[in-house]
Amino acid sequence: MDYRKMSLKKHEEWKGKIETVCRVPAENREDLSLAYTPGVAEPCMAIHADVEKSFELTRRWNTVPVITDGTAVLGLGDIGPEAGMPVMEGKCALFKAYGGVDAYPLCLRTKDTEEIINTIKILAGSFGGINLEDISAPRCFEIETRLKAELDIPVFHDDQHGTAIVVAAALKNALKLAGKDMATIRVVVNGAGAAGISIAKFLLKLGVRNIIMCDKAGILYEGMQTENAAHKEIAKLTNREGRRGLLADAMKGADVFIGVSAPNCVTKEMVASMAEKSILFTMANPVPEISRDEALEAGAYIVGTGSSQFPNQINNVLVFPGLFRGALDVRARTVNTEMMIAAAEGIAAYVGDKLAKDYILPYAFDRKAHECVAKSVAQAAIDTGVSKLYSK
Amino acid sequence: MDYRKMSLKKHEEWKGKIETVCRVPAENREDLSLAYTPGVAEPCMAIHADVEKSFELTRRWNTVPVITDGTAVLGLGDIGPEAGMPVMEGKCALFKAYGGVDAYPLCLRTKDTEEIINTIKILAGSFGGINLEDISAPRCFEIETRLKAELDIPVFHDDQHGTAIVVAAALKNALKLAGKDMATIRVVVNGAGAAGISIAKFLLKLGVRNIIMCDKAGILYEGMQTENAAHKEIAKLTNREGRRGLLADAMKGADVFIGVSAPNCVTKEMVASMAEKSILFTMANPVPEISRDEALEAGAYIVGTGSSQFPNQINNVLVFPGLFRGALDVRARTVNTEMMIAAAEGIAAYVGDKLAKDYILPYAFDRKAHECVAKSVAQAAIDTGVSKLYSK
Repeated sequence: MDYRKMSLKKHEEWKGKIETVCRVPAENREDLSLAYTPGVAEPCMAIHADVEKSFELTRRWNTVPVITDGTAVLGLGDIGPEAGMPVMEGKCALFKAYGGVDAYPLCLRTKDTEEIINTIKILAGSFGGINLEDISAPRCFEIETRLKAELDIPVFHDDQHGTAIVVAAALKNALKLAGKDMATIRVVVNGAGAAGISIAKFLLKLGVRNIIMCDKAGILYEGMQTENAAHKEIAKLTNREGRRGLLADAMKGADVFIGVSAPNCVTKEMVASMAEKSILFTMANPVPEISRDEALEAGAYIVGTGSSQFPNQINNVLVFPGLFRGALDVRARTVNTEMMIAAAEGIAAYVGDKLAKDYILPYAFDRKAHECVAKSVAQAAIDTGVSKLYSK
Repeated sequence: MDYRKMSLKKHEEWKGKIETVCRVPAENREDLSLAYTPGVAEPCMAIHADVEKSFELTRRWNTVPVITDGTAVLGLGDIGPEAGMPVMEGKCALFKAYGGVDAYPLCLRTKDTEEIINTIKILAGSFGGINLEDISAPRCFEIETRLKAELDIPVFHDDQHGTAIVVAAALKNALKLAGKDMATIRVVVNGAGAAGISIAKFLLKLGVRNIIMCDKAGILYEGMQTENAAHKEIAKLTNREGRRGLLADAMKGADVFIGVSAPNCVTKEMVASMAEKSILFTMANPVPEISRDEALEAGAYIVGTGSSQFPNQINNVLVFPGLFRGALDVRARTVNTEMMIAAAEGIAAYVGDKLAKDYILPYAFDRKAHECVAKSVAQAAIDTGVSKLYSK
């Protein structure tokens, strides 16, 4: 089936993947007096007296905008805000379907870091949390860091952390099958954009010690010539042996390949050069680094991709609905590392006894998996003292 | 019934008057491949090639944000963005209930004119139209004017024009009953804020010649000492006799009083001083300029108020759902005067044979009335050549 052609047709039929609905009766004068004027003055004044009441008297407790500037949409690059809308609407649809979250797509007509930060700060009073999406590196790092510091609602850049969390969950389960350990594996991460860097940092937090980051020019190493501050920073945290070379060099003997890079940049020879029981997560979208079939033919032990067409879909759709559900449920003031680790553990644990080479992650459409993530994240928020509703 | 107390309780139960729902199936791998990755890349690229396709392949064709800065909410004043949310959510609920429009409330944490304009320009690519709401004068004038000039989707400041349109419709029908004529009546508009000035300007366009504008300090006249540019401008367009004095002076002998001002600023004596068959529209919210009962006791012929608790509710809820429905249906690039006049005529005409002193306007909850407005506005957009879909 040609999903792309079929998808275009479906989008023409759907004319929008989400819609807003009215939750109150509006059939007569009394209905209007309660939901609108004059009655509505009372909840307004209650919030004016205590802004936190906006989480009780309006939908704010359950709302999250999915915000992009359209600069890094899927693997399509800088296609502009309007063209990013089908992806953002899709995320919003899944936010509701799997997390019960009222998400709203906002595609910004600016690429200026300060303007994006300022716009989101101006909008923040209308929402319970902020989901940043498909904003290109390195701007996305500063945007998220600044917003996290300045807002008291959860801010989450899905491309960075959503991907890191689901990769960590997949890796945890894959290593269990391969009989390997986080502390001793050699990992290659190809693609040093927002997702790649976030994955590397998150795996370091989870106990992985040996990571080689690659980008178009090959292995990143400390002291390399680059103006990319994020590359400089991650080069210091990874590749402690100071190796140099191309992706093919990095992959020799590696246990794990994690690709968030470009179509067809990995060959069968490169896969064959990896260690025994090699694990490949090829997440370039919509065309992966190497096809699943070729990777398996070349000797890969476990393969995961970003696509919903194959087993082991490593897609952050397993993360964001449950993560925000959990954060909103306990009115978390932020998303901290502990909550992200809890999300990864929630996803990995849900697989349970059914763990198999072609089932290292729950299916994205398994609603119970999302509930499991939400519960895990909510508990971590409470345990780390960032819930405004519940104390430890 | 105490609507305000009851309304607070209802808002606590509702926990939000609107929500976002998912319009696509998300039950299995194939569903995700179509609505999300990899299929979604295709509609993205189609929009990238032609931005207008965003009106066909996403919900943009039907979306309108209700945007406020919380500075002029109901009659409550500058209560802040979060506290304005119950009103904005209420409008969004009614947008859907009566116009089928997917509206979304955005309450901005800024009062800076340039920042508001810039924020809305940045957001405009996500929406089919822009509804400005409860932004205080005089900033609202510049914000609307600039946005209308710079955007190619309909921009409408409801407090100005929604109110003007429904007042014009009410006046048209009231004059029919009183046997008076637009060209010869004397009208007093009390409250020279956004709504009052817009009402006066709109009535001038509809053929009213004799209008006196009043504000807190009394009658506005050409050459008066003021730093308010909007007051200076409207003083030149109204009060051609150069009258001076207080509201009580202005009301002597007037045929029509239109109040968008403050609670209880009109006395029974002032009503009694008006011409025979006087018409009063007392729209201060939530407490009117004079109560309906007192006005009738003092001899008023027809009374309309802003509240849904009395007959003749003169509320812009009769305007915005149908006006945007009509504009969106023909993909109008703006809202022009002809479309506003068409909206007023649509509302007035809908009353038809049932016209009576206590039924000068349709009921706000009468869905057929909104359809009538939509049809009338859509036709005017086509007739004036601002529809992107249909030519005359």
